[in-house]
Amino acid sequence: YTWARRLGLVRKPANFISTISDDRGDELCYAGMPISEVFSEKIGLGGVVSLLWFRRRLPDYATTFIEMILMVTADHGPAVSGAHNTIVAARAGKDLVSALCSGLLTIGPRFGGALDKAAEMFTQGSDSGMSAAAFVKAMRNKNQLIMGIGHRIKSLSNPDMRVTIIKEYAQAHFKNNKVLDFALSVEQETTKKKETLILNVDGCIAACFVDMLRSCGAFSQEEADELIANGCLNGLFVLGRSVGFIGHFLDQKRLKQPLYRHPWDDISYIVGDM
Amino acid sequence: YTWARRLGLVRKPANFISTISDDRGDELCYAGMPISEVFSEKIGLGGVVSLLWFRRRLPDYATTFIEMILMVTADHGPAVSGAHNTIVAARAGKDLVSALCSGLLTIGPRFGGALDKAAEMFTQGSDSGMSAAAFVKAMRNKNQLIMGIGHRIKSLSNPDMRVTIIKEYAQAHFKNNKVLDFALSVEQETTKKKETLILNVDGCIAACFVDMLRSCGAFSQEEADELIANGCLNGLFVLGRSVGFIGHFLDQKRLKQPLYRHPWDDISYIVGDM
Amino acid sequence: YTWARRLGLVRKPANFISTISDDRGDELCYAGMPISEVFSEKIGLGGVVSLLWFRRRLPDYATTFIEMILMVTADHGPAVSGAHNTIVAARAGKDLVSALCSGLLTIGPRFGGALDKAAEMFTQGSDSGMSAAAFVKAMRNKNQLIMGIGHRIKSLSNPDMRVTIIKEYAQAHFKNNKVLDFALSVEQETTKKKETLILNVDGCIAACFVDMLRSCGAFSQEEADELIANGCLNGLFVLGRSVGFIGHFLDQKRLKQPLYRHPWDDISYIVGDM
Amino acid sequence: YTWARRLGLVRKPANFISTISDDRGDELCYAGMPISEVFSEKIGLGGVVSLLWFRRRLPDYATTFIEMILMVTADHGPAVSGAHNTIVAARAGKDLVSALCSGLLTIGPRFGGALDKAAEMFTQGSDSGMSAAAFVKAMRNKNQLIMGIGHRIKSLSNPDMRVTIIKEYAQAHFKNNKVLDFALSVEQETTKKKETLILNVDGCIAACFVDMLRSCGAFSQEEADELIANGCLNGLFVLGRSVGFIGHFLDQKRLKQPLYRHPWDDISYIVGDM
Ligand SMILES: CC(C)(COP(=O)(O)OP(=O)(O)OC[C@H]1O[C@@H](n2cnc3c(N)ncnc32)[C@H](O)[C@@H]1OP(=O)(O)O)[C@@H](O)C(=O)NCCC(=O)NCCS
Ligand SMILES: CC(C)(COP(=O)(O)OP(=O)(O)OC[C@H]1O[C@@H](n2cnc3c(N)ncnc32)[C@H](O)[C@@H]1OP(=O)(O)O)[C@@H](O)C(=O)NCCC(=O)NCCS
Ligand SMILES: CC(C)(COP(=O)(O)OP(=O)(O)OC[C@H]1O[C@@H](n2cnc3c(N)ncnc32)[C@H](O)[C@@H]1OP(=O)(O)O)[C@@H](O)C(=O)NCCC(=O)NCCS
Ligand SMILES: CC(C)(COP(=O)(O)OP(=O)(O)OC[C@H]1O[C@@H](n2cnc3c(N)ncnc32)[C@H](O)[C@@H]1OP(=O)(O)O)[C@@H](O)C(=O)NCCC(=O)NCCS
Repeated sequence: YTWARRLGLVRKPANFISTISDDRGDELCYAGMPISEVFSEKIGLGGVVSLLWFRRRLPDYATTFIEMILMVTADHGPAVSGAHNTIVAARAGKDLVSALCSGLLTIGPRFGGALDKAAEMFTQGSDSGMSAAAFVKAMRNKNQLIMGIGHRIKSLSNPDMRVTIIKEYAQAHFKNNKVLDFALSVEQETTKKKETLILNVDGCIAACFVDMLRSCGAFSQEEADELIANGCLNGLFVLGRSVGFIGHFLDQKRLKQPLYRHPWDDISYIVGDM
Repeated sequence: YTWARRLGLVRKPANFISTISDDRGDELCYAGMPISEVFSEKIGLGGVVSLLWFRRRLPDYATTFIEMILMVTADHGPAVSGAHNTIVAARAGKDLVSALCSGLLTIGPRFGGALDKAAEMFTQGSDSGMSAAAFVKAMRNKNQLIMGIGHRIKSLSNPDMRVTIIKEYAQAHFKNNKVLDFALSVEQETTKKKETLILNVDGCIAACFVDMLRSCGAFSQEEADELIANGCLNGLFVLGRSVGFIGHFLDQKRLKQPLYRHPWDDISYIVGDM
Repeated sequence: YTWARRLGLVRKPANFISTISDDRGDELCYAGMPISEVFSEKIGLGGVVSLLWFRRRLPDYATTFIEMILMVTADHGPAVSGAHNTIVAARAGKDLVSALCSGLLTIGPRFGGALDKAAEMFTQGSDSGMSAAAFVKAMRNKNQLIMGIGHRIKSLSNPDMRVTIIKEYAQAHFKNNKVLDFALSVEQETTKKKETLILNVDGCIAACFVDMLRSCGAFSQEEADELIANGCLNGLFVLGRSVGFIGHFLDQKRLKQPLYRHPWDDISYIVGDM
Repeated sequence: YTWARRLGLVRKPANFISTISDDRGDELCYAGMPISEVFSEKIGLGGVVSLLWFRRRLPDYATTFIEMILMVTADHGPAVSGAHNTIVAARAGKDLVSALCSGLLTIGPRFGGALDKAAEMFTQGSDSGMSAAAFVKAMRNKNQLIMGIGHRIKSLSNPDMRVTIIKEYAQAHFKNNKVLDFALSVEQETTKKKETLILNVDGCIAACFVDMLRSCGAFSQEEADELIANGCLNGLFVLGRSVGFIGHFLDQKRLKQPLYRHPWDDISYIVGDM
């Protein structure tokens, strides 16, 4: 083997595999599609996301939906953990990437994480064939909150516009809305208990996105489930929210905000065992 | 003051200022535009970026241009520093955000940084009124490379499609292409010396973006210059490239790639003074 | 309530609780110990770690042990994932913090993560009262590798000096070495099968650290277990390895190493389904 | 060349150079010193830092000084930007590394950055031979604050213990305190104007560290200056403060603190031009 390799007959195996893009050729390619075709075919940024994340082209209604998710998740004000940390880093005079990352690194189970868990819960419930009532009851018995359900203020009579927009688009365009339908019947159940236990924007995005992957014709159900399991919904939130975090960074720079120090009187300093 | 404050007559000044979005009201607003209007007005993701980063609405051709920049910068293969680090972190079994940030944190002066510097150089040259020939000569005398000029392979006879697409769009749609025109005449000069000293994709994006900000009618030249100085071009590269990095993360996960260790034989281990 | 608060009779509850240090007073205090006392009592950096992480003072042999762990984990060469990413970021011209974080963000389940899992496994095994042979067999039946066991080259006849140093110190100084003893009897079992299935440095540090927390007299077993569960062993690896990563950053800067691009011939570019 | 390389006669040049540690041999080595010797020579963690950052062994008083710097910079309470961001990330349920990095990424020009700039200013002033009075006047004329001078509360009559400890150690142990002496004479000048314009802990650490590098006998002045220029003082702050940030992470986890949202009433939401 060694002499064969030395003579160029056998190549040393490559340490890396990569399948999403190719920068070596005459034209940059995303998942095999040359960049000029990316534009001539007008696939848009949603189409670029589908090529680089899913390695295939999706129907226009699907790539538009991807862009809609990015648009609704783009920001949610300066008070949330991630925007707050980006703002504090910007005020510490840090560069854009450092400030962005300081905020992104708060995204997880409690902030932004509802999407992945809502997708998991609604998909499992929908796939199981159980009724919404049975599902809600089972969750109650396990003493578990249904991710994607509930809002502090919004209700059936005072709906969240972001949910309306996402939901109506999915119902108008997708070939199948099985998981969304299940989520909506769960909402029917939970809102019997309290009007604010609506399907919230995270639950709506999650349910619709699963339906889109499963029914757009580009994936088998196994592939669709694997994509969700690997975190592409989380990826959409991270990408979308990066727009807002960068916006907050630019805002703080423009406003020349000084270094932040949290006020002592908002901290309980305690010494000794608790 | 203290008793007046205690009685609620005077409010303690807020520690934070934020102007880009408002999550407190009935509907989420981006720079004052309610989210339902963001969709009914069909401003797209480029429009959302313009609201959150520039705090105003831009003409459709401008928001489309923002999306085009994100699309051409979305990825450039797995070999570049940032994608490489994201891939190594993904192979180390890390979560999406950690892997993304590990890659983003390589973006700076040498990787991705040409955009900001190219914008600065071409804008200064164009604003100064000097001829392209004088500009090239001045840079040569200062022994400085012109950022945004040069490519290892691409040339006038073998152009970079990404440059063609961006350039032709700007020329077709912008009210003014002064900085691009200057950059193109610089290209005329430099390519006399060597065919590959073309206006590259970073230089093209930079020059066109300055022209767009300055001529779209939404900014004074001071505002446009401040936006560039605060790093919004860098932000576009960071946001765009996040698409590719997340794509590489999902790819490595799907391929179940194991922990990476750089081969010893590719490292010169040296001890003692050098 | 509102009028009472306005009149200063009732304080708004603080949003934050913090118990590890106090910067408000005349002297900075770590867990209640004034900084001058930190030095006059000669508790060393290990003592500072014990105050800030465990909120109490530990016996000198224990704080010395903490410093020993930091010393053995400080670096393991430039080829490992974390050092590699820090080096790539440094070569991209990034600042120290960005480069350090780019490397730290690879630390997790596959790189550096063996410590936490080894602590968990050996502690469970030791606490269960089962014999080492039964433990090894149980792991084999579950088709699970014992974390903290195994090395590619080191063996009983060619031991890892780091293990020898850590082990001998623990045996000489700790009041109790129950978990270490269990780990060593596991090693007796596994090395019957293959000489290189020794207790490795991660397993040795983990087992000894659990013994130290449990027997130094400063913690109940519940407190000790909670500290391990919350990740303090991981913290020691992260802190220790930061020394090496920063060293690699300074090294690359000194050597003026240029931007890194991974060679195309070490990457398998694949398009289409796999 | 190609056939010679194929036949193994010529080796492809390595892509990486690394000089600080070697993991390939029988024993791990830090800057050529085997790990067993690192312990038998009792160089301590300060000695490990000197091997990995400076690639040589330093006298004991110098490695002890390194540890002292890490001890005084280890933490400064939960209110500062970096600790605050780490705490917010911990409360967002993030892992130790993510939370640590979220905090580290605030370290820079405004938070933690005074060390590097104070070293630069005091060294330049000391090297220039100008009197402290002339230096203070020159800074005033340039309308520049002297980094390392000033404190909100501490003064000559109410000194900062951290400064006393560091200063007295340097004066007792270093062969030369030229930069410290200069800094102290600057303090003599500035405190004439206002009692709180003392040499603060950042200025004291910076001045003493330069003196240590320059006079410990292990570096030429060029090497010492290069080390400072490459950021090793910044590195000491980053490493030291990581102790505190990890402590805050463990504290928040132990206290099971929930997701943080900054109160709306502490944010001025403004729309439209400012
Ligand atoms: C958003 C949220 C915090 C709002 O909570 P809230 O309206 O203040 O509700 P409360 O905590 O007062 O609970 C009221 C009742 O509704 C129940 N409830 C609240 N959220 C629930 C959910 N997601 N699933 C099931 N039951 C829920 C509570 O258990 C409680 O029942 P009880 O009275 O029998 O104990 C909450 O609904 C939630 O955590 N949702 C899940 C997480 C999620 O989707 N996050 C994304 C938000 S955009
Ligand atoms: C991209 C790049 C590395 C390609 O370099 P290259 O084609 O191999 O060029 P060389 O280094 O061989 O230089 C050839 C000649 O062109 C000159 N040259 C190369 N890039 C130049 C530039 N950007 N501006 C001015 N002159 C340049 C060199 O100085 C050299 O002149 P000389 O023969 O008189 O010494 C180089 O052009 C560059 O660094 N460009 C600027 C950075 C930039 O825009 N980066 C984004 C790239 S997508
Ligand atoms: C370090 C390591 C990769 C070395 O592996 P290796 O010596 O090449 O061992 P192999 O993979 O060739 O396995 C040889 C045999 O030992 C067994 N073995 C290897 N590591 C084992 C472990 N940690 N626990 C139990 N059995 C182990 C294998 O299952 C195999 O048994 P088999 O022949 O019946 O299939 C491996 O021991 C390991 O993964 N250890 C656990 C992780 C750990 O502690 N990491 C920190 C390392 S410093
Ligand atoms: C720490 C600091 C904010 C305290 O400021 P302060 O005591 O409130 O001082 P003020 O801003 O009220 O200034 C009072 C006077 O002292 C001067 N002054 C304050 N800090 C000074 C400095 N570092 N160098 C020179 N003059 C200084 C001010 O210019 C002012 O002079 P003026 O009255 O003629 O305008 C300030 O001294 C400073 O920024 N120092 C430099 C940064 C530094 O070392 N940071 C690390 C701190 S641990």
